Amino acid sequence: MQSDIEICRNTPLSSIDVIAEKVGLLPEEYDTHGKHKAKVHPKCLDRLKENDNGKLVLVTAITPTPLGEGKTVTTVGLAQGLAKLEQSVIACIRQPSMGPVFGIKGGAAGGGYSQVAPMEELNLHLTGDIHAVTAAHNLASAALDARLYHEQREGYDAFEARTGLKALKIDTASITWKRVMDHNDRALRKVKIGLNEPGKVINGFERDEGFDISAASELMAIIALAKDLKDLRQRIGKIVVAYDLNGNPVTTEDLQVAGAMAVTLKEAIAPTLMQTLEGVPTLIHAGPFANIAHGNSSIIADDIALKLSSYTVTEAGFGSDMGFEKACNIKAAAASKAPDCVVIVATLRGLKANSGHYDLRPGMAIPDSIFNPDQAALEAGFENLKWHINNVHKYGIPAVVAINQFPQDCEKELKILKELVQKFNPEVKVAISTAFAQGGQGTTQLAQHVIDACTQPTEFRPLYSKEQSLHEKLMAVCEAGYGAANIEMSSLATEQLNHFENLGFNNLAVCIAKTPLSITTDSAVKGAPTGFTVPIRELRLCAGAGFAYALSGTVMTMPGLPDKPAFMNLDLDDEGNIVGLS
Amino acid sequence: MQSDIEICRNTPLSSIDVIAEKVGLLPEEYDTHGKHKAKVHPKCLDRLKENDNGKLVLVTAITPTPLGEGKTVTTVGLAQGLAKLEQSVIACIRQPSMGPVFGIKGGAAGGGYSQVAPMEELNLHLTGDIHAVTAAHNLASAALDARLYHEQREGYDAFEARTGLKALKIDTASITWKRVMDHNDRALRKVKIGLNEPGKVINGFERDEGFDISAASELMAIIALAKDLKDLRQRIGKIVVAYDLNGNPVTTEDLQVAGAMAVTLKEAIAPTLMQTLEGVPTLIHAGPFANIAHGNSSIIADDIALKLSSYTVTEAGFGSDMGFEKACNIKAAAASKAPDCVVIVATLRGLKANSGHYDLRPGMAIPDSIFNPDQAALEAGFENLKWHINNVHKYGIPAVVAINQFPQDCEKELKILKELVQKFNPEVKVAISTAFAQGGQGTTQLAQHVIDACTQPTEFRPLYSKEQSLHEKLMAVCEAGYGAANIEMSSLATEQLNHFENLGFNNLAVCIAKTPLSITTDSAVKGAPTGFTVPIRELRLCAGAGFAYALSGTVMTMPGLPDKPAFMNLDLDDEGNIVGLS
Repeated sequence: MQSDIEICRNTPLSSIDVIAEKVGLLPEEYDTHGKHKAKVHPKCLDRLKENDNGKLVLVTAITPTPLGEGKTVTTVGLAQGLAKLEQSVIACIRQPSMGPVFGIKGGAAGGGYSQVAPMEELNLHLTGDIHAVTAAHNLASAALDARLYHEQREGYDAFEARTGLKALKIDTASITWKRVMDHNDRALRKVKIGLNEPGKVINGFERDEGFDISAASELMAIIALAKDLKDLRQRIGKIVVAYDLNGNPVTTEDLQVAGAMAVTLKEAIAPTLMQTLEGVPTLIHAGPFANIAHGNSSIIADDIALKLSSYTVTEAGFGSDMGFEKACNIKAAAASKAPDCVVIVATLRGLKANSGHYDLRPGMAIPDSIFNPDQAALEAGFENLKWHINNVHKYGIPAVVAINQFPQDCEKELKILKELVQKFNPEVKVAISTAFAQGGQGTTQLAQHVIDACTQPTEFRPLYSKEQSLHEKLMAVCEAGYGAANIEMSSLATEQLNHFENLGFNNLAVCIAKTPLSITTDSAVKGAPTGFTVPIRELRLCAGAGFAYALSGTVMTMPGLPDKPAFMNLDLDDEGNIVGLS
Repeated sequence: MQSDIEICRNTPLSSIDVIAEKVGLLPEEYDTHGKHKAKVHPKCLDRLKENDNGKLVLVTAITPTPLGEGKTVTTVGLAQGLAKLEQSVIACIRQPSMGPVFGIKGGAAGGGYSQVAPMEELNLHLTGDIHAVTAAHNLASAALDARLYHEQREGYDAFEARTGLKALKIDTASITWKRVMDHNDRALRKVKIGLNEPGKVINGFERDEGFDISAASELMAIIALAKDLKDLRQRIGKIVVAYDLNGNPVTTEDLQVAGAMAVTLKEAIAPTLMQTLEGVPTLIHAGPFANIAHGNSSIIADDIALKLSSYTVTEAGFGSDMGFEKACNIKAAAASKAPDCVVIVATLRGLKANSGHYDLRPGMAIPDSIFNPDQAALEAGFENLKWHINNVHKYGIPAVVAINQFPQDCEKELKILKELVQKFNPEVKVAISTAFAQGGQGTTQLAQHVIDACTQPTEFRPLYSKEQSLHEKLMAVCEAGYGAANIEMSSLATEQLNHFENLGFNNLAVCIAKTPLSITTDSAVKGAPTGFTVPIRELRLCAGAGFAYALSGTVMTMPGLPDKPAFMNLDLDDEGNIVGLS
């Protein structure tokens, strides 16, 4: 079989103008970027506002292995399957970060015959939105450190007298706004900046700092959650970067940099239209990870897709405890639109990995033996799928199970898995997807189940309401959501929680950063655990994005590169084509 | 008068397809990015290779004030003036860095009626090339630190046995590849990375590090100096990032990251076609500063423009001791093409600032009094213009003087300045340019002088040849070039020079980083100084770009933000338009 990039390069694509016309956009509502990408201006929603919304289909998964279980493949394949059934459909997908592309996981365009194309353009730069996030984010950092430098070097009174600006009197120890970089770069997690040669103060004042990956930037969440450019601008101005010596929040508006940040993100607010290998229109927008961020593509992209098509197929990162939880409790609340149907992607490999019968460790290859018939492991691991089905139903949304078939899978086990699902809950439809090998042709049964599920009534029940306290919201996600026995707040987290509540930020949502490799916060715990504790070690205020960001366990907001990163395979051939990207 | 961005927004522009057709590009030779930008594929040169080259006109300046003397305005205006005279012409300009845009200097699209349009697209992101440079550069850094981490944590032998990779045994103290950021961010000049919580090694090993502005990245120089994508890939692989414990160079090829870096820069090798307010085609490509880098737009853009038009007007940063020196000694050598004519931009303000009669300091506003009639100051400052005329003639190229007129200028002084030039050298033609206020109509006399100068024979004489030693090359630039009495190498610089020569890098060019505000390395010294010393404090090897990079005086490779940065003026208005950008 050809590699992903070969399949992609050998598939004829339509001009993006053709795709835009097919989807019902007017020429003045988009700008092409090359032959196969177009920025869609959110203002098209003004024209479309009277259209009925289509159905929103969200694709989630079981608790995955570190390589993922093919959620993007299934999302793209399902969209292609719906198109095969003559449905109008748009897929909405996140922009891949270059961190994973160059790190372990590789690209995020799907694979095989279910890819967003051209996959190399999706995986690298796209139309520059993540770069814009990085630039706008670090502009605020530069503004903050410059202000610290000028105020502290000169003294507050002299600074005010000379410049006419009000001294912000930032408490250096209280700075919460870290810098970002769109790479897996562990050496930047914890740094010291503003160092000088002995006896000189020309580079600022020494302070602790760190870098997160850009996907975890509050600005990334803001792009994904903003309704329009005006909302984007207002949210940016609410970002709290530090506190002053009296404990009052210092915002980007105080630094007079919020306008410039919005200017820097002016184009990034527009989703990018692409197509799948079978010509299904696809909107790419925003790239928050679902472990260390809220894990869903943008509200603006969904809004456009819902107005233009009968079905919008989107994807929430990792298992249903991760991106799907945040889709319901953060995104749906901001969008006033909940999913109409949820597809849970399961694999034989992934379920067996959840059995606890295999010695799997992050960073190690998955043993080939996992594909050997092993009914006991499959049945043990099925507990995990049951957990995710129940989790989706908890929110009042119909679930469909998609078994993403791998070439090594044995037919008998696929049949057993279907039976296990049907036995567990006859109302949950299950279909095997061969989206990777066959494209949309391999998902028509899945697509029909989705169409059927979308006719069912939903009764959307998020886990908490805005009015509850932040602590109640954290408990709701961890206990009612994950099924934990309790949460254990560090003293730092408790102090931060009280601080946020005292400052009046009680109405924020909560966004929990945790490992995606377990429903618990310990990646070694597989299956459907109960009775566990969720340790919350630190909170960060994201007042612009609209949530309090809680770090659980040992989760890190800047990944590292392995010893043989994916970038080692990448190069240009003699014709200047990219090779080694998957 | 309207602001720059208002003029730009109120000027009707052609679709970039119209500009591309007018310039003679075929539809398959470019990709549009929005309505007013297009990436021009360098492979168009295959079709054009039999065309004759047009004339290359390079715009330089006197020693400028910190605000600049209007070199981009004059470059754009001159191109428009040549078009008014019915000449086919393309302007080639560097991409502005966001550092100055958000810092002191503001945008770099020209101004008034001589701008590249849309100016906000030029000044922010453009087609993402600088972001790609930043990403590719920092990927090498992440690769380097990851390799250090894995090798050192595990031990070289165990690392080799387990991974099958050869341990690079990098000497941490020898790392020369700093990270980059496209912002003015002084707090990042000197940092420590890889810090850990006590007793843990999870973030790498602590080491000294620093960030340069992206404009100073060796990759930026490589984009500007590469002939094509293949040359880009080869140059990237030659980059030396550190030395191993035996003192041998460690390259990006050794890190197996050179291919991925080239992949990241695949689109950045294509110049971006835009237009001036009068519809003159303009190629934007690469953005090296002329103080801390080699200061010229790309060879590829020039090559394309020379094949497609009778006149290519390009610009070299700062005074003729800066970008122009590097255009002759670095760029022309790599391009095998020297300028046919050089335009020296002078202003009354700038010459008076060079008189030494005013107390001007970097970071302070220029006093309005400088526009008052003051013939003594003008005559004293004229020494600086004489120096630059002589400097251009030293290279065997005809010079034309453009007096960039400001609205506050007095007619009498403009007349005096013209007479001073004519008296100094009757062969040097001089014209007043009102490009800012009048566009091309304000530069037709200048354009005619340029046409005439381009008919003169040139006898190009760079200051040194490839075969000379690095030390001789440094002496050539400082003594024959700047007119210094001597250079003073620090012991570090001497050691580095010997190291580079021992490693066989003798055939590199030299690129001197120094203040642009004086011909010397002391920004307070104005006019046409002689007898000074050039202190060289540090050398950096840029084996991929093809030069040894020498830092003189106290020049810094990461600027800082002032207390009232330009970003404070920037915002979006209620219609989502950018305001405050100039």
